[in-house]
Amino acid sequence: MRIALDAMGGDHGPSVVIPAAASVLAKYNDLELVLVGPEDAIQAALADQGLSSHPRIAIREATQVVAPDDDVSLALRSKRDSSMHVGAQLVKEGEVDGLVSAGNTGALMAISRLILKTLPSIDRPAIATFLPTVGGPTLMLDLGANVDCNSDHLFQFGIMGVVASRSVYGVERPSVGLLNIGEEHIKGNDVVKVAGQALRQSQLNYIGNVEGRDIFRGEVDVVVSDGFVGNVALKTSEGTAELIAHFLRQAFTASWPARVAAFLAQRVLRDFRQRVDHREYNGAMLLGLNGIVVKSHGSADAYAFSKAIEVAISQVRNEMNQHLTSEFQQMLDVAE
Amino acid sequence: MRIALDAMGGDHGPSVVIPAAASVLAKYNDLELVLVGPEDAIQAALADQGLSSHPRIAIREATQVVAPDDDVSLALRSKRDSSMHVGAQLVKEGEVDGLVSAGNTGALMAISRLILKTLPSIDRPAIATFLPTVGGPTLMLDLGANVDCNSDHLFQFGIMGVVASRSVYGVERPSVGLLNIGEEHIKGNDVVKVAGQALRQSQLNYIGNVEGRDIFRGEVDVVVSDGFVGNVALKTSEGTAELIAHFLRQAFTASWPARVAAFLAQRVLRDFRQRVDHREYNGAMLLGLNGIVVKSHGSADAYAFSKAIEVAISQVRNEMNQHLTSEFQQMLDVAE
Repeated sequence: MRIALDAMGGDHGPSVVIPAAASVLAKYNDLELVLVGPEDAIQAALADQGLSSHPRIAIREATQVVAPDDDVSLALRSKRDSSMHVGAQLVKEGEVDGLVSAGNTGALMAISRLILKTLPSIDRPAIATFLPTVGGPTLMLDLGANVDCNSDHLFQFGIMGVVASRSVYGVERPSVGLLNIGEEHIKGNDVVKVAGQALRQSQLNYIGNVEGRDIFRGEVDVVVSDGFVGNVALKTSEGTAELIAHFLRQAFTASWPARVAAFLAQRVLRDFRQRVDHREYNGAMLLGLNGIVVKSHGSADAYAFSKAIEVAISQVRNEMNQHLTSEFQQMLDVAE
Repeated sequence: MRIALDAMGGDHGPSVVIPAAASVLAKYNDLELVLVGPEDAIQAALADQGLSSHPRIAIREATQVVAPDDDVSLALRSKRDSSMHVGAQLVKEGEVDGLVSAGNTGALMAISRLILKTLPSIDRPAIATFLPTVGGPTLMLDLGANVDCNSDHLFQFGIMGVVASRSVYGVERPSVGLLNIGEEHIKGNDVVKVAGQALRQSQLNYIGNVEGRDIFRGEVDVVVSDGFVGNVALKTSEGTAELIAHFLRQAFTASWPARVAAFLAQRVLRDFRQRVDHREYNGAMLLGLNGIVVKSHGSADAYAFSKAIEVAISQVRNEMNQHLTSEFQQMLDVAE
């Protein structure tokens, strides 16, 4: 298996991508990685880390870099030799099985869509990520690729989410819920209602509406929403976690006795931090494209970036896109 | 000042409402409370708590109760003598200055709207609540009263939020942000864009778009969104907090050494719990009605319910609705 890594994406570029590459290569013997970016910079960074002649690391030259704040249309039109562009091209040509990038999400989606296109019958790709819950991980999509969705799009997200959940975490028959609001007098908007009908009539394990609280209760495997709502939910969750971490830090540093307590509880607090470590869940999938593309958080460190590479590996190994294609084909057959 | 309490709302009815009433009465000497509900049940509950002849507690008979799962139209049409209905009527007739209920949100909003109507020039009432942040509290609205909003509604929510933030927490010139998503290539939907233009041209202290993470950073006083997005954000935040509490409990009970650490850190953990205690923020305001109405969480205990009563007290004391009316009048004058 070969995966391309955008060596220039994210806040840290090669200084994060290369150590992450090294740790994943040590774990997967059949893996080869292609670092995409300016060859000089990559060679220098490899030398720094003593990895200049790793037999399973290749370099592919790309002279340009998409900046975090680059306009998407600019990135598309004027940076045809960016590391993202070249990486996506490698996927298209079958030289690699997938691409991982920590760069600008909008540009990555637009470039991937332009070069790879969507899988047959899929209207819109979606961004999906796994979230921790009191049970196993829950997959949530869309997280911001599609602001205005119709009910058909939401229905397709349901199928895409199920296949992805099965591919990455091996859930046999993932349950699907539609993110909605609980007030009895409104029960969500029309788009959600119609998508719910379609999901109910499908072969999927559809469990109905779920609310914001339910995402983390481990009772649903796939949560579907439009990209606006999904993005707000994801970031609100991150903000809440930051706030609680802030309060916890405050409580354990408020006084000398508190600091002593923190010292005595340090091992427990470390275990706790590990459980809520968002790095474990790094690696959002760009689902529905005719090729595997994974987006890492821009601020990811080497550990987090290695997790994003592993998400791509799971998708390739479990032939996610083949399953997606046959799932959509079956659906069309039923409809005919 | 007189406030009516729906004695029958919420999961616990009088057994929570009456102790909450007693504690708030002890704190505010000029306060009178009117308990609305079946007189027998209320008398019995008062006697239980030794409060039968409290000079500042009155009872107003209401023979019916809106159940948590009652259909809104049923509650509106067939339960004209519900405690909610009678309570709202008392507000309308000027017998009390406000109403607090822990009952069904949808029914409370519908009944209040029917009986009290909205303030002049306000199209839609909204549900608003304060949330904890690393700084002072942030007001968020709408939380579920309006699923489909146009940009005018969002603009009005901005004004309503500013006046409420000033009335309850005394913020001089509250800053306003529109809840949006951060991806550069999309920047939210059209409704949000147009509302942003109107806010930018207004006299309000509008700071632009905010993301889900920003809600809790204490850098914005009022966060505006439509009711669907706001409700999902609020509940996602609650779900995240529950998940983290779960992990923290797990970490501190995972082993005997962990339990010892928990014992040694118990005071710190108690301080921490107090900081994240959602009961402190109980009491959502139904803003834009021609009368003060506050919704308590259905599962509120006496402490939480007392906080909701205090939200109503602040609004009455600071003449929130008079300010809202003059703010909207000014806006219209400018527009003419």
